[in-house]
Amino acid sequence: MSATIIDGKQVAAEVRAEVTREVEAFVERHGRPPGLATILVGEDAASAVYVGGKQRACAEVGIKGFDHRLPADASRAEVVALIERLNADPDVSGILCQLPVPGHLDGVELTNLIDPDKDVDGLTVASAGRLALGLPGLRSCTPAGVIRLLDAAGVAIEGAEAVVIGRSNLFGKPMAQLLLERNATVTIAHSRTTDLADVASRADILIAAVGRAEMVRGDWIKPGAAVIDVGINRLAEPPAGRSSALVGDIAFDEALAVAGAITPVPGGVGPMTIAKLLDNTVQAARLQAGED
Amino acid sequence: MSATIIDGKQVAAEVRAEVTREVEAFVERHGRPPGLATILVGEDAASAVYVGGKQRACAEVGIKGFDHRLPADASRAEVVALIERLNADPDVSGILCQLPVPGHLDGVELTNLIDPDKDVDGLTVASAGRLALGLPGLRSCTPAGVIRLLDAAGVAIEGAEAVVIGRSNLFGKPMAQLLLERNATVTIAHSRTTDLADVASRADILIAAVGRAEMVRGDWIKPGAAVIDVGINRLAEPPAGRSSALVGDIAFDEALAVAGAITPVPGGVGPMTIAKLLDNTVQAARLQAGED
Repeated sequence: MSATIIDGKQVAAEVRAEVTREVEAFVERHGRPPGLATILVGEDAASAVYVGGKQRACAEVGIKGFDHRLPADASRAEVVALIERLNADPDVSGILCQLPVPGHLDGVELTNLIDPDKDVDGLTVASAGRLALGLPGLRSCTPAGVIRLLDAAGVAIEGAEAVVIGRSNLFGKPMAQLLLERNATVTIAHSRTTDLADVASRADILIAAVGRAEMVRGDWIKPGAAVIDVGINRLAEPPAGRSSALVGDIAFDEALAVAGAITPVPGGVGPMTIAKLLDNTVQAARLQAGED
Repeated sequence: MSATIIDGKQVAAEVRAEVTREVEAFVERHGRPPGLATILVGEDAASAVYVGGKQRACAEVGIKGFDHRLPADASRAEVVALIERLNADPDVSGILCQLPVPGHLDGVELTNLIDPDKDVDGLTVASAGRLALGLPGLRSCTPAGVIRLLDAAGVAIEGAEAVVIGRSNLFGKPMAQLLLERNATVTIAHSRTTDLADVASRADILIAAVGRAEMVRGDWIKPGAAVIDVGINRLAEPPAGRSSALVGDIAFDEALAVAGAITPVPGGVGPMTIAKLLDNTVQAARLQAGED
């Protein structure tokens, strides 16, 4: 039997359609759309592509974009002043500072200047604390997107054994918190885990976010498990029989034969991140308007 | 073979002796001792005992105590004004608001008004966020005390399978973070875990904090595991052969025959909490003085 492939593009399209409707309703109630401000310092090509994609996605769902670009030699004071201005601007519902920033700036420090109620990437200390304590707040986009994928695929989270491989602040740690909030029994594994294959093989829900191409093999996977691949690794050339040189952290063909459901790379988790960013922007706007 | 009993009173006495030396050195450098302010609202007898114990412990190690007591009908504004005054007072290194507070007040809200740099209980959103993101900050006393007990007992944390039963904000969640920081593979189990005995039996380090008398049985324990009992439950009368009616979450006599090391109740984790509170107060004073 072969696993169901979880179509991240399809689920992301559903989220965007929901967001579009929510934006329309917000405009009706408030006479203005939610707004997302992006801050890009410098001319890193990949970062410019990401920011461009986010701004385009905003336009598609009716969110007003504020596209702030500062030169690579912008001073800390300039960036701080911009963030403070955006924090105070009622038309700006969400703010993100595209990382990495140039070496003379501290991306963690700058991110933490964002008003937590506008922290649509969920990266500030306050957002991490709200999540850890189970308080309302904006949640990191990629882990929140994974929860949505699991729900869309009909995966039972409550009572499941979930294993998250990888413990980054950006993904693994908040992912574990969100699974715990949904009553999974959660294990966080990582590079120092003694027998990673053994730990992985317990998982009803296995989530890999380590950044090592096809590290998780088919025989690490419990038959019928839901397998979520958060890795995006670029090989020198496409593997045999594939058109894309992008592969995940999971050996897809092997896993397909064992898992119950699996996300592909590309087209799995990736599309969810921007979709949840848009969703967070609307949620932020509603909270700031005193709704919910 | 019978497990080594980890003597929490002994380890707590060592921590207090270290703190006493650190306080003396701090006084030499700064001409004043670290200070701990406790806030007790109302006349709850148990809370008064806890606060009294903390103030006495401060006196013993040379920390200056500020013992603030407000009547049960104190207004929110009065408590807020006190916290703000203590936040601004340079002689006050640490502040704790004894919980629970009377019903007309919100303990979580009040706690969050404490300056995170003075949050010696580690309970604010900012402290939880700093811990989650691996940033410097004050850590919750009981989980930090457990780490100290494991170290004192010579338990290898790195690479170990650690299972924490219980996911409270006060203990289970920060405990999991601290174990992860020390490179354990960490599982958080709880009331919705499908097969708790099976999950527990994987643990090289098993930590129970559920508040159910002797719930964890001997056959849940991996032979040789380090077992930490955070529960304190009062039975109607002492169990056969015991003088105390206090028991933990672990069936001690059964566990003793299987585990490699185990904390007793009382005299295990309990004494560590105040010891780490004193330690946190000194760390807070040093941070505020620009040391470290």
